[in-house]
Amino acid sequence: MKGNFVYCNPTKIYFGDKAQENLSQALSSVGDKVLLVYGNGSIKRNGVYDDVKRALNDAHKKVVELCGVMPNPTLEKLEEGRAVAKENNIDFILAVGGGSVIDYAKSVGVSAWYEGDVWQNFWVNQNEPEEDAKIIPVGAVLTMSGTGSEMNGGTVITNTASKMKLTKVFGSRVMPKFAILNPRYTFSLPKYQMVAGIYDTFSHIMEQYFSDMDGDSTSDYISEGLMRSVIASSRVAMNDPENYEARSNLMWASSLALNTLIGRGKKQDWMPHMIGKAISAHTDATHGMTLSAIAYAYYRHVMPFGLSRFARFARVVWGIPAEGKTEQQLAEEGIEALKDWINEIGAASDILSLGVTNEMIPAIADSTIINEGGFKKLSKAEVIEILEASTK
Amino acid sequence: MKGNFVYCNPTKIYFGDKAQENLSQALSSVGDKVLLVYGNGSIKRNGVYDDVKRALNDAHKKVVELCGVMPNPTLEKLEEGRAVAKENNIDFILAVGGGSVIDYAKSVGVSAWYEGDVWQNFWVNQNEPEEDAKIIPVGAVLTMSGTGSEMNGGTVITNTASKMKLTKVFGSRVMPKFAILNPRYTFSLPKYQMVAGIYDTFSHIMEQYFSDMDGDSTSDYISEGLMRSVIASSRVAMNDPENYEARSNLMWASSLALNTLIGRGKKQDWMPHMIGKAISAHTDATHGMTLSAIAYAYYRHVMPFGLSRFARFARVVWGIPAEGKTEQQLAEEGIEALKDWINEIGAASDILSLGVTNEMIPAIADSTIINEGGFKKLSKAEVIEILEASTK
Repeated sequence: MKGNFVYCNPTKIYFGDKAQENLSQALSSVGDKVLLVYGNGSIKRNGVYDDVKRALNDAHKKVVELCGVMPNPTLEKLEEGRAVAKENNIDFILAVGGGSVIDYAKSVGVSAWYEGDVWQNFWVNQNEPEEDAKIIPVGAVLTMSGTGSEMNGGTVITNTASKMKLTKVFGSRVMPKFAILNPRYTFSLPKYQMVAGIYDTFSHIMEQYFSDMDGDSTSDYISEGLMRSVIASSRVAMNDPENYEARSNLMWASSLALNTLIGRGKKQDWMPHMIGKAISAHTDATHGMTLSAIAYAYYRHVMPFGLSRFARFARVVWGIPAEGKTEQQLAEEGIEALKDWINEIGAASDILSLGVTNEMIPAIADSTIINEGGFKKLSKAEVIEILEASTK
Repeated sequence: MKGNFVYCNPTKIYFGDKAQENLSQALSSVGDKVLLVYGNGSIKRNGVYDDVKRALNDAHKKVVELCGVMPNPTLEKLEEGRAVAKENNIDFILAVGGGSVIDYAKSVGVSAWYEGDVWQNFWVNQNEPEEDAKIIPVGAVLTMSGTGSEMNGGTVITNTASKMKLTKVFGSRVMPKFAILNPRYTFSLPKYQMVAGIYDTFSHIMEQYFSDMDGDSTSDYISEGLMRSVIASSRVAMNDPENYEARSNLMWASSLALNTLIGRGKKQDWMPHMIGKAISAHTDATHGMTLSAIAYAYYRHVMPFGLSRFARFARVVWGIPAEGKTEQQLAEEGIEALKDWINEIGAASDILSLGVTNEMIPAIADSTIINEGGFKKLSKAEVIEILEASTK
């Protein structure tokens, strides 16, 4: 654990196939006026909406509903939510859905009572709210796993005018107060969405793992365990999407992959997310698939700058025997194993299939924020090179 | 993740070689009257006491000191602490030390204002405090890692009259509000204590790992990562006790081993702790060493009831090649590897060296609480058998 760090994650998790039975009790300690936020209404078809309404009713809450939160929540939609929250003097926001809905709820909660330009202040300038700022607390009922939004302060908002999809990770004040994680709530999800969530989880872990290669941090050992768990459960879930244990492992691994735990004391990369978010801003492609589509090209590109870590990845995460191989060979075999697994689970392996055209590539590179923290700080030319290599 | 579970760990961790710089700020949100609790005064020789007093001073606290907390805190000492806390109307307890001091502080905090028989109510009958009970919150400055007490609600108290050493694990209300984890604060610890802490950590992980063998829980994959990290760092720290990265990994792994994370959704064993605590109640032996002293005999005894899990332990945690071996052979090699590592780091490998005599064995077995949750529920005769096998 090289660096100094602070770790605090107060989100209370209710996990399991009976998790929703805790919802009305969890709501008992929050204010009366609840904003119920959800997406396109699929929760009305799989029974989740009924469970939630029953709990809100049992807890005697006054409920205002706000639906139609889209997969990549827009600044316009955020403005709508802020207005509704203020007009109704909302005490608590209950998000029912996947990462986009929860991200959106946190974004509304943190910005509803802010007077200035919220996009500029929070997402562009990455400011925290003032210590005495009024923040509307959030709770979550998860119906799709992958983003980890249920257990962190992350909020992703897309500005469609400027084609910028920006993340602001807020501190523990903005993390959900509680989250209901019932793996069965994810069973009705289309396979494409399940796979996107699996790859999103895996990418979160890799993007914290592929940095600081010469250290021997406990965080990396936990990451290796989580990656091994995701691989094992993904193989079960692909063939048997209603396998409870596999789906529950995927759900819990997803929360732990991005609840700030495995990044403690480490530099972090996040460059695949930067490129992936730029792709989504230009195409509205599913987030997890943008990450798998560029993974092979990205990791081949940075491998020479973190060779020993890639060799360890091959050996520990993929179980590839090291004997008789150079570090280079081992590292390459690890990335090939990653590629094979991407194909095996049916995640996207090229960006053309996501709606990207060759002509879009320069503009996507322009929208890509360059991060530091990984093995190699990319130039814009390198981003273009990676995007071009991801068209094959 | 088979079972339904609740997970909530609100302890705020300040970690690193500058962690103590956050102490006065962390104290700013607690009440004025602070009870400063510590052990035999070693903190006055290594500079930790001065750091803490400076922070208390900077935060303008009124401080009452209570020292002399012993390695296995007694019920008599608890009564003293309760009296001091009440007399001085204490707002906050700051524990500076290892697990015993922090356990003690939490025990005082949860019981000071309780009117009845605290030993009977909390430790014997395992009751939680009433919802509206007055609990004095606790913070911790850790100087010895291993027990994990800094990030959980566990409290161990020894009743010397009845020779019972009992644990009560309280919920998140009793967990420390914050903990200062500076790996350098552990450098001056004698090697014997360092090793005891390392083995205590490892045992905490094993006692959550060795259960539910047919499942494929994410929790187990995290446990495997943590065990691999502890093994790697222990080997560095043995030869170079002031290796910062190794000691920091051991410190963080120790907190994560018992902050309730890796036991989520699982049955848990805890039988080695039950036997080890009975040994300490009769001998005052160092806790971690009581666990290593019985480990080989205990795990050989339960191995037949969880063979596949022991084979996985051998393969994943110790990296033992599986090829050409039966599950039985692999499982045995894993336990031999554990034994070799116990000897390598200099942990106790027999109970006679801890002051146990053959004559004490029946009484130790009488003091041993029989747990369920592991692969095999032991009879008292089996406890005696394991203790006898641990004399060699």
